[in-house]
Amino acid sequence: MSIQQLENQVIIRNESFIGQAEKLKPQLHETLVKPKALVEVVRDDEAIHGWRTEQAAPAADLLNREYGKNDSFILDFGDHQVGYLTIDVRPAGSPPDAPLKLKLTIGEMPVEMAEPFENYQGWLSSSWLQEETIFVDVLPGTIALPRRYSFRYVKFEVLDTSPKYRVVFDRIECRAVTSVNFNDIQSISHHDPELEKMDQISIKTLADCMQDVFEDGPKRDRRLWLGDLRLQALANYETFKTNDLVKRCLYLFAGVPDDKGKVPANVFVSPKLIADDTYLFDYSLFFASTLHDYYFATNDIDTLKELWPTAHRQIELALERLDENHIVRDSSDWWSFIDWQEGLNKQAPSQGVLIYTMKQAVRLAEELDLPESGNELKRRLEEIVEATRSLLWDENQQFFISGTDRQVSWASQIWMVLAGVLSNEESKKLMKRLLEEKPEVGIATPYMYHHLVEALLVSGDKDQAISEMKAYWGGMIKDGADTFWELYDPNNKEYSPYGSHLINSYCHAWSCTPTYLIRKYDL
Amino acid sequence: MSIQQLENQVIIRNESFIGQAEKLKPQLHETLVKPKALVEVVRDDEAIHGWRTEQAAPAADLLNREYGKNDSFILDFGDHQVGYLTIDVRPAGSPPDAPLKLKLTIGEMPVEMAEPFENYQGWLSSSWLQEETIFVDVLPGTIALPRRYSFRYVKFEVLDTSPKYRVVFDRIECRAVTSVNFNDIQSISHHDPELEKMDQISIKTLADCMQDVFEDGPKRDRRLWLGDLRLQALANYETFKTNDLVKRCLYLFAGVPDDKGKVPANVFVSPKLIADDTYLFDYSLFFASTLHDYYFATNDIDTLKELWPTAHRQIELALERLDENHIVRDSSDWWSFIDWQEGLNKQAPSQGVLIYTMKQAVRLAEELDLPESGNELKRRLEEIVEATRSLLWDENQQFFISGTDRQVSWASQIWMVLAGVLSNEESKKLMKRLLEEKPEVGIATPYMYHHLVEALLVSGDKDQAISEMKAYWGGMIKDGADTFWELYDPNNKEYSPYGSHLINSYCHAWSCTPTYLIRKYDL
Repeated sequence: MSIQQLENQVIIRNESFIGQAEKLKPQLHETLVKPKALVEVVRDDEAIHGWRTEQAAPAADLLNREYGKNDSFILDFGDHQVGYLTIDVRPAGSPPDAPLKLKLTIGEMPVEMAEPFENYQGWLSSSWLQEETIFVDVLPGTIALPRRYSFRYVKFEVLDTSPKYRVVFDRIECRAVTSVNFNDIQSISHHDPELEKMDQISIKTLADCMQDVFEDGPKRDRRLWLGDLRLQALANYETFKTNDLVKRCLYLFAGVPDDKGKVPANVFVSPKLIADDTYLFDYSLFFASTLHDYYFATNDIDTLKELWPTAHRQIELALERLDENHIVRDSSDWWSFIDWQEGLNKQAPSQGVLIYTMKQAVRLAEELDLPESGNELKRRLEEIVEATRSLLWDENQQFFISGTDRQVSWASQIWMVLAGVLSNEESKKLMKRLLEEKPEVGIATPYMYHHLVEALLVSGDKDQAISEMKAYWGGMIKDGADTFWELYDPNNKEYSPYGSHLINSYCHAWSCTPTYLIRKYDL
Repeated sequence: MSIQQLENQVIIRNESFIGQAEKLKPQLHETLVKPKALVEVVRDDEAIHGWRTEQAAPAADLLNREYGKNDSFILDFGDHQVGYLTIDVRPAGSPPDAPLKLKLTIGEMPVEMAEPFENYQGWLSSSWLQEETIFVDVLPGTIALPRRYSFRYVKFEVLDTSPKYRVVFDRIECRAVTSVNFNDIQSISHHDPELEKMDQISIKTLADCMQDVFEDGPKRDRRLWLGDLRLQALANYETFKTNDLVKRCLYLFAGVPDDKGKVPANVFVSPKLIADDTYLFDYSLFFASTLHDYYFATNDIDTLKELWPTAHRQIELALERLDENHIVRDSSDWWSFIDWQEGLNKQAPSQGVLIYTMKQAVRLAEELDLPESGNELKRRLEEIVEATRSLLWDENQQFFISGTDRQVSWASQIWMVLAGVLSNEESKKLMKRLLEEKPEVGIATPYMYHHLVEALLVSGDKDQAISEMKAYWGGMIKDGADTFWELYDPNNKEYSPYGSHLINSYCHAWSCTPTYLIRKYDL
């Protein structure tokens, strides 16, 4: 245990936990992937972001083509890849009397091949946009790019050679990496081809996000977030069962709490384990939830015993935010994630998350045979549920309300249903009412859509759940998704909470849950 | 011996010669150089290209500075460097939640720090402009740039970090390389401080061009040219005496003649020895000249014996270009370099180069005790000199003329003087007349200026020679040269034969000869 005083936070490093996480670091599996085709990007108002690709030639044609100054081409690797690029390039014509200057633009979506990154004006760092400008002094040569990319397409722009020579690209390959073994998985042959496809794309999404840790997105942020981890782990238990990676991630979070014991919303693992200075009410609670799910997937009682204090502590800290009426205090100085939905008040959904995780903690206390902790949690839970029903339920509107403006949002209803605040029958009615009345403060992300679908499933409306999945994830598939996207609004396909769809991640952990929903609930 | 059939040329590879060159490959000496200052580039109409630097802070201040998006700074390494950059960078603020995107602009001159490379419209490849865009995924990190740069200044532009962190540059270093050992040289304490300074800068220029081979310029073209080699070798004999590097270069040229035996104007040495497909009348002849100078500097008779056939062959091939009147045939399909001077007719100066090198070959034949070859060369030489005096000398104008338009150029007079076509007295008068009448077709490069000065020295006008050197190389020094420039026109300081002064080389082999002229002629 060591104390690390940083600019904005104090971290209590638990070196034993960190050591255990380190031991569980996976060996990555590598696959060599070759490009499938030379493509062109064409304007198409019907296509997502207004662009689609069209095959121009098979990739093998590359060998017969010479490229000089200002020539360019786009390679399609046929599917989403996470990995490392290697390029063999040789000169054609006179001996190369100047370096080759080559620009690569690497993207998951056609739009990344079409719209210049120079024009990017979003709020997240432009350094996430995948591009390289490379000088090759000696030809022929092999360009082994050291950075990992997340992509399907690569645009090559020969910015300059010299008037005396051109270049031929002899070999372009991707060494794709993941910590999962696709042989570990049982593919399902579903009666419904739409769900079967959705299952496959979920699994590909999950696999591409499973690296040294469960990453949120291999393009951006390439990082272990607790909220994403919880959903990835659920999908993993139904598919790869790479359970040690979940364990590793739990130990990573437990290794770097702050001086109050709170786990951060995300951690960095390179060059060493670092806790981010972002703390989210819901994400910290999800430590308990993820431990709960891990235990019931594995029966690993040793890990449960060791990490229980960390999980329990998250609940204690969350309870400190309750007011005298047992309701989560709303204020401008806290942050609970819930969803990217603009204007969403976080009070009621956070109350739902608290109840949801407290119930899981009660189950864990039972498993650990800790009646004292369990009973105390149950006692608090009763107060909180009762307060929630009396203070956050609007009898007139028949909806849960949130915040001083008594906001009626989708997120509030969904989390209250998942938390089991109402009876099954009441929950079912509430979900029906929600889908009929469609309150204005809606859903922004696949992450929240997952919770909508699961709320429909737990309240017993399987048909509606499938219908929502087909409209949402099925919509992504129709719009060309190879892996599921971080963000998708069927009514506003340009949507990005970051000011530009170029910076969105198009293979994102929190969108991988259809496989979990399909397999867990036998859809 | 192997035959290599390329697109435009047939090369007869002499593997024995190539093997000897390989054995002579030098070990590079390395020196760690730290930046001296943080500088700003300021507009100054009096300064070369309109820009000069001003010290902003000592380089040590860098440690106290944090840089975020769109911040930039310029480092001054205090003198010209050829080498490799290493940069230690660490984050400041929150943990870095996005890669660092960093742009480096690396330049020999203030103008390269001031004028954006994006606007470059010159005729040579823009890939010579030294810049890098680097993404650093993991911080803190060390950026060890793999390419060699030629520079004094480095501009750092932080294109993006993220709003959550900034960066500090802890260590920035250049590992400077050269194949010379500065301890090998005797510095001279000259009575004339201007000549002393000129000597020092010549030596620095030469050292920075001496790498695996004698390069023409470490920024551009980084390549072994015969015309540059000849002058570098002369400067080297007076200074570093790294004579094996000259020998190595001679073997490299002799290793890759074409199927007629002609040596190319330049060779590439990476990834392996390749003859460029450029052949120049004068440069091929300079093989004989360089061998002559090497022999008289070293008395290495074995090398002379082995390379004599190659040298002799260059003269035979040049003689094939003579017309029935023993004058070099002028036509549109040949290329003799002589100088970058626009509109310069190459006939008469090439005739001068031929005579110059034939005389050296005669001396070598004597040393080798080859009376037959020697006598034949002498016989041809007599015819050629006589033809030159009768057909290329314009009695009226009292100048040598060149081409069908009877062009009177500086280059023609200079090469005829160097070739000793006239008597000493006549030569002296011709040089005087040249400097008085100043024919319009003048001199474009330090390369041709070298020959002007040497022509003044061999014709006995030392004062005028010194005066020309002070006006020309002294002018560069006044304009801020740390090493001598590839191109300099005191009357048009923007001059570039490549359409942009950004692409000029500012440390160039053919400009390094003042140390030779000063030391050889006891100036």
